Amino acid sequence: MSNKEYGRFITFEGIEGSGKSTNIAWAQEYLRGQDIEVLLTHEPGRTRIGEELRTVLLRTRDDRLMPMTELFLIFASRMQLLEEVIIPALRRGTWVLCDRYVDSSIAYQGGGRELGVERVEKLVQAMGELYAKPDLTVLLDLPPNMILDRLTNRTLDRFESEEQSFFERIRRTYLDLARNDPRIRVVDATRPLESVQDEIAGLLNALLNESIDG
Amino acid sequence: MSNKEYGRFITFEGIEGSGKSTNIAWAQEYLRGQDIEVLLTHEPGRTRIGEELRTVLLRTRDDRLMPMTELFLIFASRMQLLEEVIIPALRRGTWVLCDRYVDSSIAYQGGGRELGVERVEKLVQAMGELYAKPDLTVLLDLPPNMILDRLTNRTLDRFESEEQSFFERIRRTYLDLARNDPRIRVVDATRPLESVQDEIAGLLNALLNESIDG
Repeated sequence: MSNKEYGRFITFEGIEGSGKSTNIAWAQEYLRGQDIEVLLTHEPGRTRIGEELRTVLLRTRDDRLMPMTELFLIFASRMQLLEEVIIPALRRGTWVLCDRYVDSSIAYQGGGRELGVERVEKLVQAMGELYAKPDLTVLLDLPPNMILDRLTNRTLDRFESEEQSFFERIRRTYLDLARNDPRIRVVDATRPLESVQDEIAGLLNALLNESIDG
Repeated sequence: MSNKEYGRFITFEGIEGSGKSTNIAWAQEYLRGQDIEVLLTHEPGRTRIGEELRTVLLRTRDDRLMPMTELFLIFASRMQLLEEVIIPALRRGTWVLCDRYVDSSIAYQGGGRELGVERVEKLVQAMGELYAKPDLTVLLDLPPNMILDRLTNRTLDRFESEEQSFFERIRRTYLDLARNDPRIRVVDATRPLESVQDEIAGLLNALLNESIDG
């Protein structure tokens, strides 16, 4: 069977303020312009169970939510999103764009909250055959001091109110992952939006060409 | 430091109808009669977050809750219970009796729901230094046909409404675990309650003597 029968799985990663939402929406439009059927989703995801868990996460943010509890909750939502939404779509041939995926857990919980990269990777191993490996991960890279600049006009949520060193650990973990896995492409998000999107278009075109050749 | 400074951690395992609730309550009274400070708890546990997750689990039981989602949710509640309740109590010198713990996940999700023992064990490994290893696990063993007899007068909940082969897989997984780990003591729960409790008393006395010698 050729690759064309399955959709491509593309994830967007990056710290708050790096332009994930803008660029993933743009990528969706770009692919649709190439007659590709696209599903845009995000973690923890729009499953009923995912939304309930998201509510628990947000409601308990000022409570005593332990980092390990948070880590397992995020994986719980992820499994539901994978089995209920992502895998069925890929099987139908739809391309799936996902705002955050396992690399976020490795960077945020493993690096940022210092639970350790290996610990989070054990959970990824436990996903087994249900781990859908992305064909491409776009990592929008931004230095932490620029993150804080960009966020001044937004309401800070749980993660956003954390201090700069937290973001620095996350960025370092993301970049370490990218160094070891060619699936992850680092895109310099400090540049003007047009340059960023030109680079993303190039990455998408490479996948589109593979699909046609496949 | 002697062992006396830390409490002992004792878990009770077994299938529905095996007498866990009765016997763990009895063990609590027995230990209190020996002037031991005891905390009785159960999974998913009486933390605020644990109760919220329990509600999600129960509410979504007829929905599309995936076995892997359930597995991660159970571990999320477990981490919260460990960090918020169990570990602080053990550090104070309190003995903790817990109704279900990691062996339940291995037996129910790994064996019963056929996610695989190794997969669940990866999650236990991911718990790392937060995995409190029980000093003793009392496994109340009952053949599945007797489980169903005992449950006829009770409202069947999610697990209880599953078929007999599900319970057989769980029992087999429990017994496999017990064969490989001397921490787990198999107690034949088909006998009269008094014989069962005599045997449990013997197991508790062994721990009490170790504590005095420690």
